[in-house]
Amino acid sequence: MAKHCVTFDTAVTPVTVPTGTLLTEAARRAGLNIAQPCGGQGRCGRCAVRVQGGAVRRRSTMRLSAADVAEGYALACQAVVEGDVAVSVPPPEAAERHLSTDLTAVDVAVPLGYDPDHDQTLHRLCLTIPPPTLQDQTDDWCRLHNELCQQTGLSGFQISLPLLQHLGGVLRQEGWQVTAVIDARPPPEPPRLVALLPGHMAEGAPLWGMAVDIGTTTVTVWLVDVHTGQVGAQAAEYNRQVTRGEDVISRIIYASKNHDGAREMRQLVLESINTLVQRAVHRLNIDATDIFKATIAGNSTMMHLLLGLPAATIRLQPFVTAVNHLPLLCAQEVGLHIHPEATVDCLPGVASYVGADITAGVLAAGVDDGERVSLFLDVGTNGETVLGSRDWLVTCACSAGPAFEGAGVHDGMRATRGAIEEVWINSQTFEPTVRVIGSGKPQGLCGSGLICLLAELFVTGLVDKAGHLQPDLPTDRVRHGAQGWEYVVVWGREAAHGRDLVITHADINNLLRAKGAIYAGFTVLADSVGFPLAAVEQVLVGGAFGQYINVEKAIQIGLLPDMPWGCFRFLGNTAVKGAYLALLDHRARARISHIAAHMTYIELSADNSFYDAFIAALFLPHTDLSRFPSVWQQS
Amino acid sequence: MAKHCVTFDTAVTPVTVPTGTLLTEAARRAGLNIAQPCGGQGRCGRCAVRVQGGAVRRRSTMRLSAADVAEGYALACQAVVEGDVAVSVPPPEAAERHLSTDLTAVDVAVPLGYDPDHDQTLHRLCLTIPPPTLQDQTDDWCRLHNELCQQTGLSGFQISLPLLQHLGGVLRQEGWQVTAVIDARPPPEPPRLVALLPGHMAEGAPLWGMAVDIGTTTVTVWLVDVHTGQVGAQAAEYNRQVTRGEDVISRIIYASKNHDGAREMRQLVLESINTLVQRAVHRLNIDATDIFKATIAGNSTMMHLLLGLPAATIRLQPFVTAVNHLPLLCAQEVGLHIHPEATVDCLPGVASYVGADITAGVLAAGVDDGERVSLFLDVGTNGETVLGSRDWLVTCACSAGPAFEGAGVHDGMRATRGAIEEVWINSQTFEPTVRVIGSGKPQGLCGSGLICLLAELFVTGLVDKAGHLQPDLPTDRVRHGAQGWEYVVVWGREAAHGRDLVITHADINNLLRAKGAIYAGFTVLADSVGFPLAAVEQVLVGGAFGQYINVEKAIQIGLLPDMPWGCFRFLGNTAVKGAYLALLDHRARARISHIAAHMTYIELSADNSFYDAFIAALFLPHTDLSRFPSVWQQS
Repeated sequence: MAKHCVTFDTAVTPVTVPTGTLLTEAARRAGLNIAQPCGGQGRCGRCAVRVQGGAVRRRSTMRLSAADVAEGYALACQAVVEGDVAVSVPPPEAAERHLSTDLTAVDVAVPLGYDPDHDQTLHRLCLTIPPPTLQDQTDDWCRLHNELCQQTGLSGFQISLPLLQHLGGVLRQEGWQVTAVIDARPPPEPPRLVALLPGHMAEGAPLWGMAVDIGTTTVTVWLVDVHTGQVGAQAAEYNRQVTRGEDVISRIIYASKNHDGAREMRQLVLESINTLVQRAVHRLNIDATDIFKATIAGNSTMMHLLLGLPAATIRLQPFVTAVNHLPLLCAQEVGLHIHPEATVDCLPGVASYVGADITAGVLAAGVDDGERVSLFLDVGTNGETVLGSRDWLVTCACSAGPAFEGAGVHDGMRATRGAIEEVWINSQTFEPTVRVIGSGKPQGLCGSGLICLLAELFVTGLVDKAGHLQPDLPTDRVRHGAQGWEYVVVWGREAAHGRDLVITHADINNLLRAKGAIYAGFTVLADSVGFPLAAVEQVLVGGAFGQYINVEKAIQIGLLPDMPWGCFRFLGNTAVKGAYLALLDHRARARISHIAAHMTYIELSADNSFYDAFIAALFLPHTDLSRFPSVWQQS
Repeated sequence: MAKHCVTFDTAVTPVTVPTGTLLTEAARRAGLNIAQPCGGQGRCGRCAVRVQGGAVRRRSTMRLSAADVAEGYALACQAVVEGDVAVSVPPPEAAERHLSTDLTAVDVAVPLGYDPDHDQTLHRLCLTIPPPTLQDQTDDWCRLHNELCQQTGLSGFQISLPLLQHLGGVLRQEGWQVTAVIDARPPPEPPRLVALLPGHMAEGAPLWGMAVDIGTTTVTVWLVDVHTGQVGAQAAEYNRQVTRGEDVISRIIYASKNHDGAREMRQLVLESINTLVQRAVHRLNIDATDIFKATIAGNSTMMHLLLGLPAATIRLQPFVTAVNHLPLLCAQEVGLHIHPEATVDCLPGVASYVGADITAGVLAAGVDDGERVSLFLDVGTNGETVLGSRDWLVTCACSAGPAFEGAGVHDGMRATRGAIEEVWINSQTFEPTVRVIGSGKPQGLCGSGLICLLAELFVTGLVDKAGHLQPDLPTDRVRHGAQGWEYVVVWGREAAHGRDLVITHADINNLLRAKGAIYAGFTVLADSVGFPLAAVEQVLVGGAFGQYINVEKAIQIGLLPDMPWGCFRFLGNTAVKGAYLALLDHRARARISHIAAHMTYIELSADNSFYDAFIAALFLPHTDLSRFPSVWQQS
């Protein structure tokens, strides 16, 4: 086999490796350690290097933009050597900055009038404590406690044993000048000493907390200076549990198999969070132990797996969680690598399939605060939907299946580079035009692309109301394939992988079931409270996916209710935004508790009307066309 | 060297060993493991075996009664082979029972009118919980919590993460029938779920708590059925820290040397407690995890070393503790091998040298509850003294030194077998008569023997008021020895070790300083509140040592104030009794907090009057004879 010389700019000498060697392996032989947090799966983008010259083949460029690739960037774990190569290894920090622009920018404003003195529970106090004398032999903790009470007007501070063990040393290190970090939640929670540091810290120095959203697919961490409310850094990556199952059900099964399964799942999500924390603190040039408070959102399964709680009952009838309202925990017991005594506030959920991601989302979307009746939804595997206003809230979760996440569909994929995100079909020629994420040749269809495609197939008459492909139209794109009738979206010659890219009859049925389940959820919710769906004043869509939905198309297939486009608002990751708001303001946090406690959960599997509503919604756009006047008028 | 055959009844074959081999070593060679919790120092008595025939020499028979020795018992770690021997090894349990009769019997009555429903915080509840359905998907913890609230009328139960992790499994194991153990302390402490067990336990079954006293010398554990208040088992042994220093000061020095020193001290005392717990639960045929609550007394140094708190500041001016009032902890974080979630209540102390042993003692002695003014004292290395009544309490600790514990005295020893505990001297012949603990030949003098001896020396005129031995009396027992003037208590021919047993001039000075410090403490306390010492109505003496003090003799040397003997009460281990009362009754527990918070501590090293009082008390019985009318009238 041919051998090639690989020169790394940061290595002492070049190495010689055979054709097909991964750059990560070549680097290892050259004595370099290129971090691969995702285990070399090409997922995290942390191993990006710049190929200055020579031949490498990129197996995957996920996490790289076209501009990155044009500049010579490659993922070392996905690039194989095919000739002599000169490689430049960016310092870890630089690699991160470069790639982190890929991540969704933080699009949140500090809440208007945020006042840490009144809103925030985390505080830093500079204390000068009178040292003990023979005349005043008050013990260390009592002496500190007196000072804490005097400065805050509070009493009954809690302290942990590990903190007590270090108290005396810290108090004396800088001559009884200390900085105390306290978490003073509203009663009945007692105020708590979180940390004690020697000396006085600068008044204006940031005080760090973090908001976390544990998504089934993506974990997001925001580091927040709770003094100003500013997000100082954010980081996101795939939830490492993804390798043990794409959706919550398969993860519960994995975790329930044996004791180690649950332990492993817990470890994986902790690794995800802790890695993100490391990335974020590195960027801010602070230490992870400078983070004293964490507020965590996530669906009920994610929360259970994070905390090592048995999740099996979530999956099995009658679908109950171990706990929806968790007590306050500390970082050490959870396993978060921030300050070991940092308060960890896991936000409360409502039910097995309406978790803290939804309660946080309802807060972030302001549903519980509005006079108008809103429909809030988080489209994904489980279409979690909330209907209500400041006066009442009802919620349900419909098992839509993973079709909108690109799974269970022949050429489905996630919304990453190479995914078709939009489709237009010429109603005369039935020829499609597609838009691909990151340009380049298409590899498959992501959720927004599938919605678009189905809508176009419908409005051009390629499929009928029941979702059947029409074989007699003058186009060779409708054909009978191995799995029945199908429509060719991209011919093999134009596709990245050289194969025809199709949507099959079975795919269409899956999409109909997914959209039908979600729409049926709306119907059942509205019926349950006797509120006409048509009277809903706004539709608030959470979740990263929501941002890419084409409203017109979603209405055309009957996924979203038929309302003027101005009624729709796409809010991005409402879960992490809700966690952020709860991190900042104890009243926001109390609102989430109130939402979780007062939202009425409707279990669709126990609701007879759901099945009827589901069947009615399996048509395009719906059996009852009066529900979709805009679509009906078009067609 | 001669070889001998040793046959153990529990070993497969005999072993042959040379003369002088320890029985423990012979047993090891025979494949037997004889437990030596004290490390083979002959201290614990756990390795007792019965020599059925043959020649062994007992180096030490400490922990064995004369009857034991007569029956052939020997401590395997102290017995050397001197001929062919047949040895019977009692099963560990039998050995323990046999020897545990040595320990002070539990001399405590269940408090009159003890009513666990009202007094006790620990409760066991049998719950039948409605299982979840599709119509009621309340989560596991909320479901259990509702039932707890309904049965108790309380709310806001706390639960730990480990308990949450096992909740679902336990609830379903016996079809939603569970037994909950809760600890419901008065507010502001929230009620807490301590344990959840599958199925319903029998109503009348005992519910175990434990009271612990960590003495500098001895650790005592009482297992208590909190339903009845009965002490089910008790066990005591040397505090294993003894090998790292006899008194608190040397232990603090050891613990402060390096990080490992503190860790080691913590480990040693935990081993002591956990071993005692094992012995006690074995006797009751229960499991250590059946103990759900622990209340711990002990001096401040012991408490600090138990919890890994730095103790160095206790020893150094201005003598402050890290903490006097400890938060409630759980067994797991403390390191106690009982139920991991069991509440551990470390009783509060007052100051560095007035710890929880004294606050518990004050409670047990009822000082804080009496209309009459009492003097409470715990004679030991530190003469901790409390003066007061229900209206006021003052306390001090005088560094008396270890003379009364037999240390720092030429022929001093602990109050174990072979120690002279009483002495009478003929005032004509100056010849002494002695009583020895456990009969047999005397080996030394313990504290009570020293008090007796000093009193007799004084009343017979062998020493004068200043404590000087009188060399001109017609007796050869007063002589000039290597260390100055001395009095021979036992001639070598009558002593166990064959050497003359003496009390030296230096010994007498040590004893005078010890008794002078303690008496000066009384004086300062009384003066501090302007209460005449003579007006004290009763003297309550705590501590095991107190039980053996001869009041007449103690008054004669000026150790105890001159009062009618009927005013003295000897209460034994008041620390463990106080812990027991606090374990049973939350009002007793609150009283200890009140005692700790309200008792005025007088730091003698900062009190100018102490030195004068000390100098005045260095005489026999005192410079001011009017304080000791009964002694004055005698002499």
